[in-house]
Amino acid sequence: LLTQDQRDRIDVVLVSPRNPLNIGAAARAMANFGFAQLKVVAPFEAHWREARSAVGAEELLQHAQLTESLAEAVADCTLVIGTGTLTYRKPEQPVVPLPSLTPQVEMELTRGGRVALVFGPEKHGLTREDLSFCHTLVEIPTDHRQPSMNLGQAVAVCLYELSARASKPGPTQADEPPAAPSGDLDLFAGVVEEAMLAAGYSPHTMQAANRHDLRLLLRRIAPSKRDARRMLGLFRRILWRLNRGASEADKE
Amino acid sequence: LLTQDQRDRIDVVLVSPRNPLNIGAAARAMANFGFAQLKVVAPFEAHWREARSAVGAEELLQHAQLTESLAEAVADCTLVIGTGTLTYRKPEQPVVPLPSLTPQVEMELTRGGRVALVFGPEKHGLTREDLSFCHTLVEIPTDHRQPSMNLGQAVAVCLYELSARASKPGPTQADEPPAAPSGDLDLFAGVVEEAMLAAGYSPHTMQAANRHDLRLLLRRIAPSKRDARRMLGLFRRILWRLNRGASEADKE
Repeated sequence: LLTQDQRDRIDVVLVSPRNPLNIGAAARAMANFGFAQLKVVAPFEAHWREARSAVGAEELLQHAQLTESLAEAVADCTLVIGTGTLTYRKPEQPVVPLPSLTPQVEMELTRGGRVALVFGPEKHGLTREDLSFCHTLVEIPTDHRQPSMNLGQAVAVCLYELSARASKPGPTQADEPPAAPSGDLDLFAGVVEEAMLAAGYSPHTMQAANRHDLRLLLRRIAPSKRDARRMLGLFRRILWRLNRGASEADKE
Repeated sequence: LLTQDQRDRIDVVLVSPRNPLNIGAAARAMANFGFAQLKVVAPFEAHWREARSAVGAEELLQHAQLTESLAEAVADCTLVIGTGTLTYRKPEQPVVPLPSLTPQVEMELTRGGRVALVFGPEKHGLTREDLSFCHTLVEIPTDHRQPSMNLGQAVAVCLYELSARASKPGPTQADEPPAAPSGDLDLFAGVVEEAMLAAGYSPHTMQAANRHDLRLLLRRIAPSKRDARRMLGLFRRILWRLNRGASEADKE
């Protein structure tokens, strides 16, 4: 079973939730299963912290972290897991059925990482851009005739799985260092993008697509913090060179 | 995984639910996990069938069976499972943690039985009398600081467990005949009680306690349908004798 310290390194992230009652219900489920770290990204209603459905989780809701973007919410997470039914889209990341998710999460926690479990808005779930911040997608095995779950119920089911089904820590790859947190990857991606522009690599119309693919690529590679730092150093050097070349060319 | 036929032999029973939104949420979770048999016992609000929270489960809600008593709702069930946190009471039946429940349910379904999953009202859960109709209690492993779950979320978590965690049918005791349904046990208990009274065994003030203990005893024994019929025959015979003796004594 997960220790309290491990539970405290699992963030529940709600992206643009519309109904405050669902935010409260998510908070209640978190309290039920011993989780406390709630992050709310750009909620629709201003007074969500007063949701009456947060029975026994009022304090948790008061302490929830509010962010403007998903990137910001998961910046310190080393494993970002997107939730939702994948009925209507072709996933760009590995998809794990919920009943098989726990070992991966446990391993990440055992080696000191921080995990985010990301839930999309009620109507349409996570967007393609939201999903590009995720290392893994998890699929709740729902009936194909009625796949879409209520937000609070989806949170409850996922936290039950992580909370109740966690095994004793088995032979994990705990020796591996934790992956670089999401914010480090975004920082690196920004420098790569600057370098691409400086090198004249990317026509301006291609920028959005390149950014999306780069984000996915970095999550697929999942470099360690140290490797990410090295790669960042290299690209900063490249960028400096490219810009110096450009300014020298200007002088001529 | 459970077949559709097996899912159709799992009843979700809501006892005296207060908030129609919770009934709708339970229905939605059932549709999400491929269950369809909902029974509602003595609900508080009249217009529960119109609950807007039953997204994608409107038809399921229309077809839900309404009963006046829990006894009636589970009369045809061979395995009745009570849910709830047991923090505040001393259980009189075996308690199974939810993550270990599925094999027992699978076995019962494999041998042709019918299973009821019983949920109590929002505020206080199932009463001691409600629980006396249960063969087994299931405990959702919630945090001791905040054990009480929202009704719709509790239903979702239980159905996820049964739906997603079911294994391939392993070496079960499927050769054993299914247990007698709850209604048969109640019928038998009625005859036993008559016999007790006829034999002058039970002072009238003891009746309620005896009835409660007898109900629990019969669920502990869990006789097969055939054995329950035999026992019923025996007690009818005893009762007849006792009453004849009484009427002969009257004659004297």
